[in-house]
Amino acid sequence: MAGQDALVEPRLLKGFRDYLPEMMQVRSAIIDIIRQTARRAGFHQITTPAIEYADVLLGAGGAETDKQVFRWKDQGDRDVALRFDLTVPLARFVAEHQSELVFPFKRLHIGDVWRGEKPQKGRYREFSQCDLDIIGPESPAADTEIVLCLFNALDEIFGAFGAGTFTMSIGNRVLLSALVRRFMPGITPEGEVEALVALDKMDKIGPEKVGDLLRGIIAGADVSGLTGLLESRDARGDTDLSRVASIVAGDPVGEASLARFRDTIVGLRAIVGENRGGRLRADLSLARGLGYYTGIVFETRVDALPQFGSVNGGGRYDNLASRFTRQKLPGVGGSIGLDRLAGAFEEMGLVKPFLEKAAKRRVFVAVATADAVSYAFTIAETLRAAGVTTDIGLQIGKLGNQFKTADRAGFPWVITVGSDEVARRVYGLKNMATGQESKEQPLDELVARVQGIL
Amino acid sequence: MAGQDALVEPRLLKGFRDYLPEMMQVRSAIIDIIRQTARRAGFHQITTPAIEYADVLLGAGGAETDKQVFRWKDQGDRDVALRFDLTVPLARFVAEHQSELVFPFKRLHIGDVWRGEKPQKGRYREFSQCDLDIIGPESPAADTEIVLCLFNALDEIFGAFGAGTFTMSIGNRVLLSALVRRFMPGITPEGEVEALVALDKMDKIGPEKVGDLLRGIIAGADVSGLTGLLESRDARGDTDLSRVASIVAGDPVGEASLARFRDTIVGLRAIVGENRGGRLRADLSLARGLGYYTGIVFETRVDALPQFGSVNGGGRYDNLASRFTRQKLPGVGGSIGLDRLAGAFEEMGLVKPFLEKAAKRRVFVAVATADAVSYAFTIAETLRAAGVTTDIGLQIGKLGNQFKTADRAGFPWVITVGSDEVARRVYGLKNMATGQESKEQPLDELVARVQGIL
Repeated sequence: MAGQDALVEPRLLKGFRDYLPEMMQVRSAIIDIIRQTARRAGFHQITTPAIEYADVLLGAGGAETDKQVFRWKDQGDRDVALRFDLTVPLARFVAEHQSELVFPFKRLHIGDVWRGEKPQKGRYREFSQCDLDIIGPESPAADTEIVLCLFNALDEIFGAFGAGTFTMSIGNRVLLSALVRRFMPGITPEGEVEALVALDKMDKIGPEKVGDLLRGIIAGADVSGLTGLLESRDARGDTDLSRVASIVAGDPVGEASLARFRDTIVGLRAIVGENRGGRLRADLSLARGLGYYTGIVFETRVDALPQFGSVNGGGRYDNLASRFTRQKLPGVGGSIGLDRLAGAFEEMGLVKPFLEKAAKRRVFVAVATADAVSYAFTIAETLRAAGVTTDIGLQIGKLGNQFKTADRAGFPWVITVGSDEVARRVYGLKNMATGQESKEQPLDELVARVQGIL
Repeated sequence: MAGQDALVEPRLLKGFRDYLPEMMQVRSAIIDIIRQTARRAGFHQITTPAIEYADVLLGAGGAETDKQVFRWKDQGDRDVALRFDLTVPLARFVAEHQSELVFPFKRLHIGDVWRGEKPQKGRYREFSQCDLDIIGPESPAADTEIVLCLFNALDEIFGAFGAGTFTMSIGNRVLLSALVRRFMPGITPEGEVEALVALDKMDKIGPEKVGDLLRGIIAGADVSGLTGLLESRDARGDTDLSRVASIVAGDPVGEASLARFRDTIVGLRAIVGENRGGRLRADLSLARGLGYYTGIVFETRVDALPQFGSVNGGGRYDNLASRFTRQKLPGVGGSIGLDRLAGAFEEMGLVKPFLEKAAKRRVFVAVATADAVSYAFTIAETLRAAGVTTDIGLQIGKLGNQFKTADRAGFPWVITVGSDEVARRVYGLKNMATGQESKEQPLDELVARVQGIL
């Protein structure tokens, strides 16, 4: 029966990972801020199943999507799949629960998604998404509300990690399309989409190569005016909207979308204050790739890591759930890239100080003798009830082991108790950095004393 | 191409469900308390992937397990499965990361698991588990720590929902086995396990039927002494430990496990205080079914719902990760049944009042005119920054719609602003219950005023 004793190698699938306590602490801190910010702004959290019918998740999804989706026949021979984003489940959710929801429906969804992509640095087959959306209103106020909530969450997250500043670029696809039509008269709708994709690459490949791509759509088009306009910046770094105004003059769609765009930026800066408002930038070249966006678009980058890519993105869409319902459900939404943020903070060397700071607010109770266990627990519970994170030595009597545990785990202070301390209702307090010990601390000043040193 | 326009029916797989905002709020409240309680007690949260190699999750799992597990071949023809509990992943995790972890390792894991069981009332194919474990120490202090943390979390959760009291029954399988051997001399190890399973049914089927089961193991055994002993209770409702002491006298294993059991109960009551200590009960008949438990076992029931089943359970085990490593890793752990708790509170009619109470601490800002949007957002953001949950009307100008939205969503107060209010730096305040409106409230007392009424 030797075979039954053979060990299974403890291993994970390629592209999957565990979150150990420290990385989990970083993620939880970020998630808690997002949840709290969203809740205060009246967003409601929902959850949907990981597994759904494949036809619900995939629709007419092509071979490319199929290759990436985890899909199989379940025990009942149903064609099922794991969700690959939180947007399709939101569409299904809203269509299915229309009558139970209050619109405007403001939802937060934090959940894992799965994609069988080729694993590479920073890309995993299982990752988390944090999505905020407002379904229902077409008003600019809804655009403002989404941007504000994401901005506030990022502001607080960056503050918590001491991560400096970020820049949230805001564009508008309707206005950008109007500009494209002005500079490239006669362009087809398909050509327009191609042009947006090309313009979205301005940051990466520069205006000349973007110009080449545009001339590939309409041969000989004079597009230097367009790329020049999108490259130009006013004194505060925005796309020069007075030049944009002169170009869209007389085009009702262009004028209306410019007015909406300008009002949104001006309004947002007024609301967040002039100081924080500097982190918002009007950038009309932003198109957010091939997305289904049909109005405002935005994305956020870390100022200290210009090459890092965006940690947040989103925009307005016309019709969320057209695959599931005839009812038109417009919306606006954005997501915060949890793993990207954690990755950025890691790259900036901010994770270790963050964890060390958190570790310093804890205390460890070491137990010298078996008859002091109950006393030690009473001390621990008193501190915990007062909000102090308190661990306790569980290898009773082995004081050396307990000190080693406390030291390895970075506790700055250790409380020591044994028979003597129990008898005299006192405790010892050891500073782990200096090794200095204060004996005979009176029990009735415990909470104040510990809160005072942490 | 009419086919492409056909709608997909928005539907879920049998046994799966969405969590709408209200149920999600209940779950989040419970989870937040568990996380906070565990964190304060020095537990570390971890996360593991949903998908793992099937041989890691299933081991030598028989056909019965296979039928329940979601398992398939992935894109790379790997045999993969969705986890069906958080215990096997913990074993794999600890074996894999041994060198990175500090022991005693105190971990919290909250995550979804999947089982293709036959769906029925209260049973789903996707559900959440909240597991707390301490890996490493064999000391009674670790037993105490786990029970304490679960007890504190349940205490706070029951308080938050006004759910009355609960009873946490605590048994010890080593002591129970010693009793079985005393009353059924010559019983085989397999028979002993059978006897524990039978004794665990005392609550459900009563001592006579348990006696029948026991006599099926050793024909003619005189087991009425055993069932009588386990049925007997002392003045505070505990198993009569002085009678147990007289029976195990002279049996070293029995005496040692009785001492440990008694010390744990007495210690726990001293730590939580005499008042709360009444919720702890020594119940030696508890064996926790077929579990792999090898020491303390415990489970919790809701006093108001005696028939409801347990909302928490756990115990001590000898060797967590024997399938993955030769290193012996003893531990003690327990879980809180999130769905069961929510279900119990629902059955007790406590969910609606809980949600209504939460809803009362919010305010809604209604916007009468487009030129007041920025002003309205500034008000909302000021309140949010002060910790007040604040929603804002997004159907600008349609004041009636906004009031309807606020009313349907249960906001007790609505702030109203329009051109006039902007000009005079004031706002109106409407009590939604009485319909009474106070106009011209000064903006600079906003936070104090709103905090005063909520």
